[in-house]
Amino acid sequence: MKTALILCAGYGRRMGGKIKPLMKVGGREILYRTIKLLKDNGLERFLVVVNEKNFKPIEDFLKSNEVDYEIILNPHPEKGNGYSFYLAKEKIKEKFVLVMGDHIYGEDFIKSAINGEGLICDRNPRFVNLSEATKVFVEDGRAKRVDKKLDNFCCVDTGFFVLTPDIFKVAEEIVRRKEVVSLSEIMEKANIKVTFVDGLFWMDIDTEEELKKANRIVVRSSYKGIGDGFIARNLNRKISLRISEILVNHITPNQATLISFFIGMLSSLLNFISIPLAGIVYQISSILDGIDGEIARASLRTSKFGGWLDSVLDRYVDFSFLLTLSFLSNLNNFEWFIASLAIFGSFMVSYTTERYRGAFFRDFYKEFNFKFPGKRDERIFLIFIFCLFSFLGKFVIISLLILIALITNLRVLATILVVSRRYL
Amino acid sequence: MKTALILCAGYGRRMGGKIKPLMKVGGREILYRTIKLLKDNGLERFLVVVNEKNFKPIEDFLKSNEVDYEIILNPHPEKGNGYSFYLAKEKIKEKFVLVMGDHIYGEDFIKSAINGEGLICDRNPRFVNLSEATKVFVEDGRAKRVDKKLDNFCCVDTGFFVLTPDIFKVAEEIVRRKEVVSLSEIMEKANIKVTFVDGLFWMDIDTEEELKKANRIVVRSSYKGIGDGFIARNLNRKISLRISEILVNHITPNQATLISFFIGMLSSLLNFISIPLAGIVYQISSILDGIDGEIARASLRTSKFGGWLDSVLDRYVDFSFLLTLSFLSNLNNFEWFIASLAIFGSFMVSYTTERYRGAFFRDFYKEFNFKFPGKRDERIFLIFIFCLFSFLGKFVIISLLILIALITNLRVLATILVVSRRYL
Repeated sequence: MKTALILCAGYGRRMGGKIKPLMKVGGREILYRTIKLLKDNGLERFLVVVNEKNFKPIEDFLKSNEVDYEIILNPHPEKGNGYSFYLAKEKIKEKFVLVMGDHIYGEDFIKSAINGEGLICDRNPRFVNLSEATKVFVEDGRAKRVDKKLDNFCCVDTGFFVLTPDIFKVAEEIVRRKEVVSLSEIMEKANIKVTFVDGLFWMDIDTEEELKKANRIVVRSSYKGIGDGFIARNLNRKISLRISEILVNHITPNQATLISFFIGMLSSLLNFISIPLAGIVYQISSILDGIDGEIARASLRTSKFGGWLDSVLDRYVDFSFLLTLSFLSNLNNFEWFIASLAIFGSFMVSYTTERYRGAFFRDFYKEFNFKFPGKRDERIFLIFIFCLFSFLGKFVIISLLILIALITNLRVLATILVVSRRYL
Repeated sequence: MKTALILCAGYGRRMGGKIKPLMKVGGREILYRTIKLLKDNGLERFLVVVNEKNFKPIEDFLKSNEVDYEIILNPHPEKGNGYSFYLAKEKIKEKFVLVMGDHIYGEDFIKSAINGEGLICDRNPRFVNLSEATKVFVEDGRAKRVDKKLDNFCCVDTGFFVLTPDIFKVAEEIVRRKEVVSLSEIMEKANIKVTFVDGLFWMDIDTEEELKKANRIVVRSSYKGIGDGFIARNLNRKISLRISEILVNHITPNQATLISFFIGMLSSLLNFISIPLAGIVYQISSILDGIDGEIARASLRTSKFGGWLDSVLDRYVDFSFLLTLSFLSNLNNFEWFIASLAIFGSFMVSYTTERYRGAFFRDFYKEFNFKFPGKRDERIFLIFIFCLFSFLGKFVIISLLILIALITNLRVLATILVVSRRYL
């Protein structure tokens, strides 16, 4: 199966005439997501049915995305989506996917749906407005009724189909005798086979509200939590995900990396003015540090370079903060000895696990259930708290340095031990 | 082709009766190397012809190495290697490799030879004693004469053959009418096809001297030079490879890692006694630091864990040395600021490139032709030189710290720039 037919000839009336397939969710056009996920699952050829109004913008979009596409113009979109579908008749000679251009689907959904047959239905539609959904009454594994207004139904039409070209004969028959034809009619008439894919993420986008909801879900589900410390899980992510929801359609992941880097470096400099203020800004930069990854995953823009740059810049921020804090505390020789241990231990927490990836090509945190404290989010939160109390005297900063030196170096030691125990 | 026949029934007279296939070269038995390299090239089944004397040791060896083997006992090794060969007649029904158990072959050689046909010959034998070698006179691509004493020859018999079972008929014919049969006779009689594999590493081991030579070549060729700085290439490796030649048959790579780690940590402590002495021992530890990798590669024992551990321990050694040196120099607040930059920069040189591997799963030094100074071997050499002159006063150590802070941080900056330029 190589071909997908995507219907984009609808008017998008409730969205003020905006072109729904080109509206951004999680930093990417709905159409981009659908094509990307179908491509990831082996499809290669994309037939897109458009209307006269959105022809040019959709063509420009497809051109700029290096995809093997063919545009089919529907000069009469008022004849219904069944008619749009029928127009692809001559272009398709083998099994294909049919999908709605204004529906958004999650990765898991497409992975399951693509192995189905006929109309893909959801018995547990968690994300759609049921009153607006097309319901399906199933009998003997086939669609007996397909309609928005059904009292007796067991599942909902997801707008995703896996079909064979026979279906066009049924479509043709209806098109010949009726002026306006809906896809539901064709499927009902064809008594199409039903496959259930239940409870996974998919939505049709009809209103601005649904667009926002989809955006929120896509951003939230980008967060996996692997490698996060206690503070990140319970505080930082709760804030950063909300910010990412807003920023995801406006900035790139690398821009987010640079913003959190500059705020982090700024916090170091703020030590010269006010240590408590510096601590607050440092903690803010720690929250913002999650945004680049969230945006990258939500907008399908993760890059190896982005991950590398973020890690390297994080080391600079952490070093600068401890360095300026130590310098401004006018430490003596022995106190600097401790500060150096704190700085070194903080690096090594990252080094041991990143070097693990470089050696084993696998993620340390996926391999080991490692609960020792001392991750970056936890260190920064600790520094932030101690900075707030720095007015009590130099001993606060020295206590902080001792604490960090201890926690980080013990954590590194524990890392060396667990890895050695597994491989020696 | 799944089967290899390995002849190990010779007496090894010139080696004082030692079992040649079980003698170690580059930390591994000759037989281990041959089987390992043949396995890497797709062979699965190993028939090993032994004599009564070495039967038990070779069987024990094969058992402990988890290989699909079958032992064929030659009760009359005095009948010649042609007779040993003939004994495998009933065991082999398809194309197979025949190889001498007392020959050592390099990876490149086996990779080429295994795709050849008939007798593999070398027109440019760079590593063997020509007077002892079996010469081959080739006519029309086939062996016309095969003998140690030939005046007219174009190449040398490598002891490696790719044969079909027909050859056993020729062997049988000769065995029936002669008491002592050499492989050369069989090949000559069969007018065997010749394939040339020229100038690659292979040797037959007849004397202690040849054993040493093979060991030296295997250790030397384990060194590839990727990622080495100027001092490593031009000084450290020249010494470490000589030490590895001696140690390779006696210690494991992880033992070598720990030895160089302890000597490195010792050098830090020596700062308390004498800074010049500490510098000398630090430089020695830097030389020894190459040995683990050399031994690992030569003895086919490279491990991801070993690479990881070595990197992590190197960071500890470098940190400890700069820390104790700074501490003992009783630096003031501003001087510690510089020392911290030197410590951080040294760390980041490794972090940026190792994190690159973790992100891209490729080696930074293979991807980028990066000539900027500041690698570990260069830093340690610089520290060593400055330590020698530490008696001139504290300014020497401070100059050293400034220099290291500058070189390393500029190197890291350059790394960030070259990577960003490629991926942004």
